[in-house]
Amino acid sequence: MMKNDVDDSFALHTDLYQINMAESYWADNIHTKKAVFDLYFRKLPFGNGYAIFAGLERIIEYIQAFYFTEIDLDYLKELGYQEDFIEFLRTIRFTGTIRAMREGEVVFGNSPILRIEAPLIEAQLMESALLNIVNYQTLIATKASRIKQVAGDQPISELGTRRAHEFDAALWGTRAAYIGGFSSTSNVRAGKLFGLPVSGTHAHSFIQAYGDEYIAFHKYAKRHKDCVFLVDTYDTLNSGVPTAIKVAKELGNKINFAGIRIDSGDLGYLSKEARKLLDQAGFIDTKIYASNDLDEYTIMNLKAQGAKIDVWGVGTKGITAFDQPALGAVYKLVSIEDEHGQMRDTIKISASHEKVTTPGIKKVYRIINNYTKKSEGDYIALAYEQPEKESELHMFHPVHTYIRKAVKNFTAIDLHEVIFENGKLVYECPKVQEIQLFAKLQLDLLWEEYKRSLYPAEYPVNLSQACWDNKMKNIEEAKKINRESVII
Amino acid sequence: MMKNDVDDSFALHTDLYQINMAESYWADNIHTKKAVFDLYFRKLPFGNGYAIFAGLERIIEYIQAFYFTEIDLDYLKELGYQEDFIEFLRTIRFTGTIRAMREGEVVFGNSPILRIEAPLIEAQLMESALLNIVNYQTLIATKASRIKQVAGDQPISELGTRRAHEFDAALWGTRAAYIGGFSSTSNVRAGKLFGLPVSGTHAHSFIQAYGDEYIAFHKYAKRHKDCVFLVDTYDTLNSGVPTAIKVAKELGNKINFAGIRIDSGDLGYLSKEARKLLDQAGFIDTKIYASNDLDEYTIMNLKAQGAKIDVWGVGTKGITAFDQPALGAVYKLVSIEDEHGQMRDTIKISASHEKVTTPGIKKVYRIINNYTKKSEGDYIALAYEQPEKESELHMFHPVHTYIRKAVKNFTAIDLHEVIFENGKLVYECPKVQEIQLFAKLQLDLLWEEYKRSLYPAEYPVNLSQACWDNKMKNIEEAKKINRESVII
Repeated sequence: MMKNDVDDSFALHTDLYQINMAESYWADNIHTKKAVFDLYFRKLPFGNGYAIFAGLERIIEYIQAFYFTEIDLDYLKELGYQEDFIEFLRTIRFTGTIRAMREGEVVFGNSPILRIEAPLIEAQLMESALLNIVNYQTLIATKASRIKQVAGDQPISELGTRRAHEFDAALWGTRAAYIGGFSSTSNVRAGKLFGLPVSGTHAHSFIQAYGDEYIAFHKYAKRHKDCVFLVDTYDTLNSGVPTAIKVAKELGNKINFAGIRIDSGDLGYLSKEARKLLDQAGFIDTKIYASNDLDEYTIMNLKAQGAKIDVWGVGTKGITAFDQPALGAVYKLVSIEDEHGQMRDTIKISASHEKVTTPGIKKVYRIINNYTKKSEGDYIALAYEQPEKESELHMFHPVHTYIRKAVKNFTAIDLHEVIFENGKLVYECPKVQEIQLFAKLQLDLLWEEYKRSLYPAEYPVNLSQACWDNKMKNIEEAKKINRESVII
Repeated sequence: MMKNDVDDSFALHTDLYQINMAESYWADNIHTKKAVFDLYFRKLPFGNGYAIFAGLERIIEYIQAFYFTEIDLDYLKELGYQEDFIEFLRTIRFTGTIRAMREGEVVFGNSPILRIEAPLIEAQLMESALLNIVNYQTLIATKASRIKQVAGDQPISELGTRRAHEFDAALWGTRAAYIGGFSSTSNVRAGKLFGLPVSGTHAHSFIQAYGDEYIAFHKYAKRHKDCVFLVDTYDTLNSGVPTAIKVAKELGNKINFAGIRIDSGDLGYLSKEARKLLDQAGFIDTKIYASNDLDEYTIMNLKAQGAKIDVWGVGTKGITAFDQPALGAVYKLVSIEDEHGQMRDTIKISASHEKVTTPGIKKVYRIINNYTKKSEGDYIALAYEQPEKESELHMFHPVHTYIRKAVKNFTAIDLHEVIFENGKLVYECPKVQEIQLFAKLQLDLLWEEYKRSLYPAEYPVNLSQACWDNKMKNIEEAKKINRESVII
């Protein structure tokens, strides 16, 4: 459970049914059949107009470390799996090919973020972990990006470790928030492991330990040149701010009076009054930091009211994606090798139309208008198609097919990079700072109407005609086969 | 970042300000002063009438493994911390005493779940991690308990791994859900590490891999005696259920046709129709499993509509505590050793009255009425008080003090166990099955009105007179000291 249990692995970080299916595939000798899975979500979170993909670095680590330890295998034996199957699992490693969007990519519903081509059993055993990673990290990167849209040029600090869903969420969540546009994290381990900028000064308990703000600020300043004093332990305007000013005056150039932080009360009113006190005292460059359950809604409101806040601390609402704490990415089989070694496309039909999958091995292109330099939409095509070589693309809505447009003079960008090729890692993860910048540049390709936090326009994610025709064909065939097999 | 990075530790799993404060305490030579912190939340989640504490086992592991690795220390040096302080951190270990409620305990707002007495610097460095653990695990155990209240005797499977907030949440969250009353988990690693019952059979992709339900069910049954067939891949009532019945008839005693699972569509209608088909075919003991975004609200509604569902699969809504994905536990300094070696109580005052802390070293008692065997409420007293020896207790509401009652013929149960004593672990964690049972027995001590999922009655959490008087005295003193220090 802790990092020092060396004979634990993440291979069992999966749902039991994956292992049951794996066993059946293996027993039926179809486990090495080449299978193709798409990983995607159907619906954008928070009513947002886009999402920011995050999670690839963790996926790479997970796959590279994928193997069953002896303790894992002993446990499976305990559960009743038979020796021959366990023997097979002992040496299993990932040997497939994975294409994925880059971290920081702007992504939309029903667009494959990852495409996994691997022996059926390998792809199946990894499903739960891959979804777990993408769902959480993409959710947080997207939430952070929404908050960043509202904060504009003002920096945002991620402070949510104590409210995150356990350790991994605090760690990977704050990295995802940085990708989405946050400026720093309070989580020191995230700073160490990912090279994120870390920030923070002191808490209420520091004041309480001295029982007196004046003494506490002095004690803090003695060892730390950059001072952001927390001013709301007792009474922000009557005690905290005046005391901070007094200490700063006494210390003069010995410290950099970088800011004050307000963590409770009415942040609008308090920040405006605090700004007056600071300015009157000549501390016009001293910033006001605010925290306390902030998110894109409160920040937008506070700014609209003219709050004098310079730096935003975001905790709970960001790291938990409070208003919608789950993204529903799925992992769907879209093609599989048949008994003759040919690929056969597969489909899942559902009474809920949005749950019907899109069969076939596919690619995702972003169609950039060469004149506006903005995106016209995403275009999902079968892998053999080459939209980059077409002179005119016919794009149509995958549900309301009468919504269509013809695009000329475009550049079709293949959004997938090859990450693993036949089990071998062939991709190098960029630094998180580069990923943040990449996300920003990708967002620049979108018209503003897709980036509004409330009721954004729907970004077009279209199927090629061939992809659409293939889907319709598969729906008909699947219905036929499975109805006909029922004769009771 | 992965478990095989052996020179990583969780000591840096904290907020940067904790390390800044630690440095100041150390530089000021007050770091070894004995400090007492209470860990508690203010407000119950989900509008529920109680919470279920979980997280102690993880806390114990964290504290036992608490030390800074050389790589941690190198990173702190990089951040600019000075050599002398880093040298001090190199050998720091936890040497304090921790009292805590047992996992599975029923707990309410403003009641200290943990009381940490330790050298100031040690207690401070651990704050963020302890909160992170308690907040998440208690949230999930509570959510699970709410769902269990509605499901009654029907079993609930936890299936949320893919929607959990990263790996740790899936693992510790499913354990917390079990504590709250769930029956099993799909997460195999949680089964291995905690001895939880694991469950699951197959997914839609299994059917798709064969392209035909009839073949797929047969293939599954060949290797697995207990069969729960997933029937909604194509068409639940026209294809899935009839095919499952056909296969079960063909195989007879060779399998245990344990159930069918429905994962989409209208679960009320489909389950009733599927029940008819199963009964008509003579499979009256075959259970109907349902999943698809279930929580206490949908389960209550489906049951009210007479849905024929026997086993509930709960994923997203449980493991993320979807309707309120954060618990706001805090960690507050309540007493500290002064320069004369005497303990001085501390307080945090706030414009928000619910954020004012309760000073002093305290104990929490549950007051059981010896006649009804039900709880009269919790009673927070100063540590020197002995309510168990009183013949009559005067209990009053900590905000509306006119709400009061006198209780006679009671048993006062101290809810805290000593977990660490002077750094040494003196507590043995029960098995998770025992914890689940303990939670159930503790819930039996509550009147039903506290357990309603909507608008439950408010369970009394009262302060002793001495505790109240001490709080009032501290409020006055703190206001005086900090206003007087401001003379600009």
